[in-house]
Amino acid sequence: MANKIRVTAWNEFRHEKSNEYVKSIYPDGIHGLIKQFLETNDDIEVTLAALDDPANGLPDEVLNNTDVLIWWGHMAHHEVPDDLVERIRHRVYTKGMGLIVLHSGHHSKVFRGVVGTNGNLSWGRDQKEIVWNLLPSHPIAAGIPDHFTLDIEELYCEPFYVPQPDALVFGSWFEDGFIFRSGLCYLRGAGKVFYFQPGHESCPSYHNEHVQRIITNAVRWAKPAEFGYEIPEGAPMMQYKPIDEFDK
Amino acid sequence: MANKIRVTAWNEFRHEKSNEYVKSIYPDGIHGLIKQFLETNDDIEVTLAALDDPANGLPDEVLNNTDVLIWWGHMAHHEVPDDLVERIRHRVYTKGMGLIVLHSGHHSKVFRGVVGTNGNLSWGRDQKEIVWNLLPSHPIAAGIPDHFTLDIEELYCEPFYVPQPDALVFGSWFEDGFIFRSGLCYLRGAGKVFYFQPGHESCPSYHNEHVQRIITNAVRWAKPAEFGYEIPEGAPMMQYKPIDEFDK
Amino acid sequence: MANKIRVTAWNEFRHEKSNEYVKSIYPDGIHGLIKQFLETNDDIEVTLAALDDPANGLPDEVLNNTDVLIWWGHMAHHEVPDDLVERIRHRVYTKGMGLIVLHSGHHSKVFRGVVGTNGNLSWGRDQKEIVWNLLPSHPIAAGIPDHFTLDIEELYCEPFYVPQPDALVFGSWFEDGFIFRSGLCYLRGAGKVFYFQPGHESCPSYHNEHVQRIITNAVRWAKPAEFGYEIPEGAPMMQYKPIDEFDK
Amino acid sequence: MANKIRVTAWNEFRHEKSNEYVKSIYPDGIHGLIKQFLETNDDIEVTLAALDDPANGLPDEVLNNTDVLIWWGHMAHHEVPDDLVERIRHRVYTKGMGLIVLHSGHHSKVFRGVVGTNGNLSWGRDQKEIVWNLLPSHPIAAGIPDHFTLDIEELYCEPFYVPQPDALVFGSWFEDGFIFRSGLCYLRGAGKVFYFQPGHESCPSYHNEHVQRIITNAVRWAKPAEFGYEIPEGAPMMQYKPIDEFDK
Repeated sequence: MANKIRVTAWNEFRHEKSNEYVKSIYPDGIHGLIKQFLETNDDIEVTLAALDDPANGLPDEVLNNTDVLIWWGHMAHHEVPDDLVERIRHRVYTKGMGLIVLHSGHHSKVFRGVVGTNGNLSWGRDQKEIVWNLLPSHPIAAGIPDHFTLDIEELYCEPFYVPQPDALVFGSWFEDGFIFRSGLCYLRGAGKVFYFQPGHESCPSYHNEHVQRIITNAVRWAKPAEFGYEIPEGAPMMQYKPIDEFDK
Repeated sequence: MANKIRVTAWNEFRHEKSNEYVKSIYPDGIHGLIKQFLETNDDIEVTLAALDDPANGLPDEVLNNTDVLIWWGHMAHHEVPDDLVERIRHRVYTKGMGLIVLHSGHHSKVFRGVVGTNGNLSWGRDQKEIVWNLLPSHPIAAGIPDHFTLDIEELYCEPFYVPQPDALVFGSWFEDGFIFRSGLCYLRGAGKVFYFQPGHESCPSYHNEHVQRIITNAVRWAKPAEFGYEIPEGAPMMQYKPIDEFDK
Repeated sequence: MANKIRVTAWNEFRHEKSNEYVKSIYPDGIHGLIKQFLETNDDIEVTLAALDDPANGLPDEVLNNTDVLIWWGHMAHHEVPDDLVERIRHRVYTKGMGLIVLHSGHHSKVFRGVVGTNGNLSWGRDQKEIVWNLLPSHPIAAGIPDHFTLDIEELYCEPFYVPQPDALVFGSWFEDGFIFRSGLCYLRGAGKVFYFQPGHESCPSYHNEHVQRIITNAVRWAKPAEFGYEIPEGAPMMQYKPIDEFDK
Repeated sequence: MANKIRVTAWNEFRHEKSNEYVKSIYPDGIHGLIKQFLETNDDIEVTLAALDDPANGLPDEVLNNTDVLIWWGHMAHHEVPDDLVERIRHRVYTKGMGLIVLHSGHHSKVFRGVVGTNGNLSWGRDQKEIVWNLLPSHPIAAGIPDHFTLDIEELYCEPFYVPQPDALVFGSWFEDGFIFRSGLCYLRGAGKVFYFQPGHESCPSYHNEHVQRIITNAVRWAKPAEFGYEIPEGAPMMQYKPIDEFDK
């Protein structure tokens, strides 16, 4: 099918190789499972990429053929080269590439640089999380009930020092007394960004049917728009035209 | 086709009957032309409704089978019954019916009641308008160039005393020194609302290809979401469950 | 002091007369306590008003001398006359009167009519609530810690079918597994609106120091702006001027 | 007066030294004029800083004593060191320092890095600009009429590829057929950012009374909030406490 949405699922992909318990949950990597459930949809195809791949998995020939980039990183944010961050930022801002940042990616250079934030939050022990649907009219909430429960997930909590989102789709309750804005949409340049909180490497959240639906919805929402003109890469000068000649 | 988007195009439909010049531009009424260009799309079907129809064109059997309601009114806002406004408001808020309000509908009871505004603005003589694309990543801007010109349109100008929109998609320049936020998205309850400024009865704006594309895009954007649960009509009490039993 | 902020604290004021327990918490009424803590500030003066007062406590001579209206209602929303709602709405939209809606006022005609919402939410048994500070840079969060606890408050929970706010200042955690957006700012017409969730009649939340600070902050935030021109009451026509004559 | 708002007005300050015409408009530099009109207010004191000063005018002892930083840059954006940008970004995000970016600063590293944008726009010949007041209830619009005219200003025009602002306060009309969102508020981390478009070096806009009032208003709006707790510099771990012990 010619017009599938081309997703690249990027994963730091180290926990799954170094930790037996994580490996038991995600034997093909978190990105491997994401590919698997996304590709049950006819309109989506997924390429895998990892930090330790050549060119960190994202050489130009991959990035330039990516409609939506999914990003999972945790302990090695500092190993991601600045020029890769800049290339991603450029592609989101001027080509409209979608960006979906998962869980600990809140502190990635990519999220911080694209959205404009330090991504700070507080965190704590794994516990029960209940995800609440705050905006059922939003495309990313399609098919999602008013709430669903993750029996075990890492605590992330407010204040989350991010910009107020263009749409706040999900919010979460945590057992120990904390809440978190867990699903946030940002429009940046010509592109769209979605941050989603669940997905600690030692928790099986990406196996949850609602989490899978949310990520699938986000891919469709974040794909590049059909632009009616060429988005400029810089700040072009407008040639003066007398107003009577405008659009003639 | 079973799953077409069911649009009802409501028009005050008096100018086109009383004024020969208006009739020459819109011989089938503004709503008639809207039906015509929307139905060139396979996924949209349009029902016509007018103020002077029985039940003002919107008895329950029509309204309950409407996915997106388009509203054009001007001189007879006060003739629209309050209970019809309330039925529309209810359907937007709890069923997710989309609402597209055109031009002078800024002062309709429907727009004021659904969005929460008095809809005040200033206005003046017909003149050249240039519509600028402020948010090319938005679905309603799909296929629209960075700007397009309407040679003659009624002046609407700021300050426009509406709430800040969830998305500001278009802004307009007017020859005499004025600007106007001309394409605005509002999320209200379970529904979506789009206001679009062009469309004075004596101007041929609905014949413009970009205006037609914008309204078509807006229909697709505003259609009811796929809700994953039943949106309540009131404020239900939650039965207490010990948290250990939540979602069991 | 000439330039005090003139607050009118409106209360349904029935629970405190009919229920001994409520009376023990708020012997002077909820509005009486609000007056007491607000007037510990030199820049604020408070007038009391209640549903059963003549003209429902809000004749024109009161409303026209109100900078910020505080609204607490619960069981008698339907007894508030529609024309009073319309007068409040008009004063917010065109005079910039501030409006602070508390707790069960989410279902008042005033909140619904001014903001554009049905105000629906879910609710349940009284329980522990923890209020989280989501936007410490906002004036309404001045002096508020990152969180504070209310040992007992009525459960209000998501989905809350309100418009996305201009600023989401507070969010709340509830013991039984629920969350709620509990402090929301809306700009409407020339005015400002703040909704704050705590304050069930049988809970002592208005005695809490942080709740008092939040309401005090909200009064200062919501007071009418210093307008540099006269806000119009309708939609005035702009006289045509050749652009060369503009502002001459 | 102990509690004055401490403004640092930073200027690239080269045009005023190299170009006689610019020098004739701003003999003390753009920042010099800004200092002059801001200090007519009792509550504001201004320190001057320039690109060619030691440490680019912003050593730690200056930056750490700045409540609001005003930024004017144009041709030498690339000469601003990355670590200075990072120090500003950190101070906005975690100390709540206000940031006011003027005119060509849309392309500065500071604006791009703090807000999350490439700052792209189009531009053209100097011409008449009319600034419209889109949000008269906002503190930055205090005392500003519904519009005012700048007889000559550089054309900046849409699409402006910035994030949708938290508040859109001003919009501008330009003679040649263009519009621009010219006054935008962003909340970022614990800080506030205002971008304002007028102020080309060869135009006398900073002598305009309304422009002066807007910048004065913006200083008061952007000053650091009164935080009720210490904003963290990173992502602290929350120690587990049984919920019954929360806030005991």
